[in-house]
Amino acid sequence: MSTPTAARRPRVVIVGCGFGGLEAARRFQGEAVDVTIVDKTNHHLFQPLLYQVATAGLAAPSISAPVRLLFRRQSNITTLLGEVTTIDPVAREVHLEDGTRLGWDHLIVAAGATHSYFGRDEWARIAPGLKTLADAFEIRRRVLMSFEAAEIEPDPARQRALLTFAVIGAGPTGVEMAGTLAEIARHTLSGEFRRIDPASAEVLLIEGGPRVLQAMPESLSQRALEQLQKLGVQVRLNARVTEVTPTGLQVQSPFSDGGAGIGTHRIDCHCVIWAAGVAASPLGRLLADANGAECDRAGRVKVLPDLSLPGHPEISVVGDLAAAMSYRPGKEPQPVPGVSPGAKQAGRAAAANVLRRIAGKETVPFRYRDYGNLATIGRNSAVVDLGTPLGPLRFSGKLAWLFWLFAHIYFLIGFRNRLVVLMDWASAYWSFQRHARVVAEVRGRGEA
Amino acid sequence: MSTPTAARRPRVVIVGCGFGGLEAARRFQGEAVDVTIVDKTNHHLFQPLLYQVATAGLAAPSISAPVRLLFRRQSNITTLLGEVTTIDPVAREVHLEDGTRLGWDHLIVAAGATHSYFGRDEWARIAPGLKTLADAFEIRRRVLMSFEAAEIEPDPARQRALLTFAVIGAGPTGVEMAGTLAEIARHTLSGEFRRIDPASAEVLLIEGGPRVLQAMPESLSQRALEQLQKLGVQVRLNARVTEVTPTGLQVQSPFSDGGAGIGTHRIDCHCVIWAAGVAASPLGRLLADANGAECDRAGRVKVLPDLSLPGHPEISVVGDLAAAMSYRPGKEPQPVPGVSPGAKQAGRAAAANVLRRIAGKETVPFRYRDYGNLATIGRNSAVVDLGTPLGPLRFSGKLAWLFWLFAHIYFLIGFRNRLVVLMDWASAYWSFQRHARVVAEVRGRGEA
Repeated sequence: MSTPTAARRPRVVIVGCGFGGLEAARRFQGEAVDVTIVDKTNHHLFQPLLYQVATAGLAAPSISAPVRLLFRRQSNITTLLGEVTTIDPVAREVHLEDGTRLGWDHLIVAAGATHSYFGRDEWARIAPGLKTLADAFEIRRRVLMSFEAAEIEPDPARQRALLTFAVIGAGPTGVEMAGTLAEIARHTLSGEFRRIDPASAEVLLIEGGPRVLQAMPESLSQRALEQLQKLGVQVRLNARVTEVTPTGLQVQSPFSDGGAGIGTHRIDCHCVIWAAGVAASPLGRLLADANGAECDRAGRVKVLPDLSLPGHPEISVVGDLAAAMSYRPGKEPQPVPGVSPGAKQAGRAAAANVLRRIAGKETVPFRYRDYGNLATIGRNSAVVDLGTPLGPLRFSGKLAWLFWLFAHIYFLIGFRNRLVVLMDWASAYWSFQRHARVVAEVRGRGEA
Repeated sequence: MSTPTAARRPRVVIVGCGFGGLEAARRFQGEAVDVTIVDKTNHHLFQPLLYQVATAGLAAPSISAPVRLLFRRQSNITTLLGEVTTIDPVAREVHLEDGTRLGWDHLIVAAGATHSYFGRDEWARIAPGLKTLADAFEIRRRVLMSFEAAEIEPDPARQRALLTFAVIGAGPTGVEMAGTLAEIARHTLSGEFRRIDPASAEVLLIEGGPRVLQAMPESLSQRALEQLQKLGVQVRLNARVTEVTPTGLQVQSPFSDGGAGIGTHRIDCHCVIWAAGVAASPLGRLLADANGAECDRAGRVKVLPDLSLPGHPEISVVGDLAAAMSYRPGKEPQPVPGVSPGAKQAGRAAAANVLRRIAGKETVPFRYRDYGNLATIGRNSAVVDLGTPLGPLRFSGKLAWLFWLFAHIYFLIGFRNRLVVLMDWASAYWSFQRHARVVAEVRGRGEA
């Protein structure tokens, strides 16, 4: 009688170690599967605080954790650094850029999204978005170097343009960036320059829609707008950017006197930060094309209620890469928002469904628990919109800001990171100082 | 009777905000001079701890301070970011790369030095030195990416080469780098890989001279050597590097059996760190050529006892850019070593001499106070060589390490930095963790 070969443990490959991939991997702890997680960087990034690195308030290691370290104790997880170029659903392999092939029985794709430039991809070089640490360093470099260049610039018109900053898009990222830039100009750098007055810098927040923070209730949008204006940010609503050049923008908006028609005007500025639009990772289209699935306009993959690809139960997509719906009994399905809790819960749910499939059980539709939304505007102010069992709870101002602060520290990974961030914020609060102002390379992307 | 024009205050320009430039600028606090300090970066770097950034132990902001912030309260100091391209002694101007011209009545040049590749400058791209933050990030990237690449590499010979690290030059920087690399391999990364054993990495320290830490007394050299070997570092003395390629080195050294002659052998490795040789900033030659002064072989400018250029009392050179001598009454002049206290004291002395010249007084020869030397080897060990009024005090081991630790924290700038570094080192000591492992750009210099 021949000895039966031992059954191989099911192999799971997870693409991406953002919030979705991280939670999916954690869900497999102690399970009888062999997991390989692949990311094109060596770290998990706490994206909600990325704007703090971009505004020199925190050092990069404070908001990131080495992927390899996170999974050190999970012996069933292998961590690999690499970029996925192809997903082969027939051979059930992913191909990495260096030629490596990883076979899988179950695949979870959590490759995330980036900003969309609405068809004008050439603007990306001039107006960086804020999705990776490299982006944050580039924005920080440009902001700080603008003040340096202005200090040495003899021509007043050019000096003015150097001290004009434009943030495009008034979602949480744009609002946080604009508020913080205003703080830097008015407080952090005060007294440090001899030829310019940094407080004279202009910070513009340009939004195509009718209000800031459109995902929030109107009352909180209004509060946020007031706070921004109090900080000195010039908010332009219903304003569309039609051209971006290294020396300025063209903006189209209704006339401020309410008259009919739309005017176009030019803003001379050298520092434009892009915080608008969503474009899913190209892996989305790759997956969809290879499997007959559909993507939405932003390139997000439309998935089934259990987060799998139609016709391919062995492939799941979660996080910003997925156009997923949340199913609650007796209610209409709701789209899952592109925020960190959405990615985390979906990652966990997709992993749980993988385990169900392995055990031969039925999968479960994803149900998103919306705990609410937060956004901070400046050093004293935030807006908080929470869903509680008793109904929505909305507040703003100083209390909201404390809530925001502690919520973000709570969700940071790593005791050391929490301690350092708390310390940096405490000292920044008292002294207005920002502790991550060092620019390692004065010349940035695309400069000689 | 015509009103006499108010006499303009003397203008001092300081080139460089390393230790020399920083101390010179501080010496002018409250004095009736107008100082402009120019640096090509926006930060003052605490270079003795730069190897910690290169080995992922500390974040860059912990060991640097924004120049502009340092001089915020000194109203007679203007800080400018720029790179000096020309020094015009006739017009008494420095020219910056962007075309700006700064006039001076007194000039202090403290532009520092970098590594020398002994005529083989093409090696710089393959084997980075450790002088700037950009260097430190590049080395950190290469070290961490070597382990990542080894984890995914199928070929055993290539894997071995990826896990071989070579440090060239056994001065303090080389010794500290080699000891720390061994720690990373044996402790920090242990348990994090599934296909390789990071502890199997080989760390080589290659030194052309007969001992490590040649500036230290022989007994301490010997201790340091023993400590390095205990950490698993392979030390090759009397070994000269004759070729550096992206895949390995050629090293020439006496035969290990003591036989006559010299052998050349090849080391396959992908990560080479250069910590040997001194090459002064090109501004040294520029100054010398324009003023008929002399440079030594490393390009350091030979200055007079009061740190000024021969024939040009209005120009002083300090720090690593200068070949300066220390004058003690009744003793032979001694060369000032290229260490931070040497630069700091010379910066202060040059500034004091500028003030004497302005007041019409005689200048004073520079006298260097040598407090001693420290170098650390690993997490438990250092060598300390102090000059005390009672004679030299030398010790090594754990006590020396504690001394080294507190001395470096003491001299760091900024309370916040001291606190964070103390915290990071305390937690690193207990957990072997390194808190700055994030690599922002996986591809480095010169890669697509």
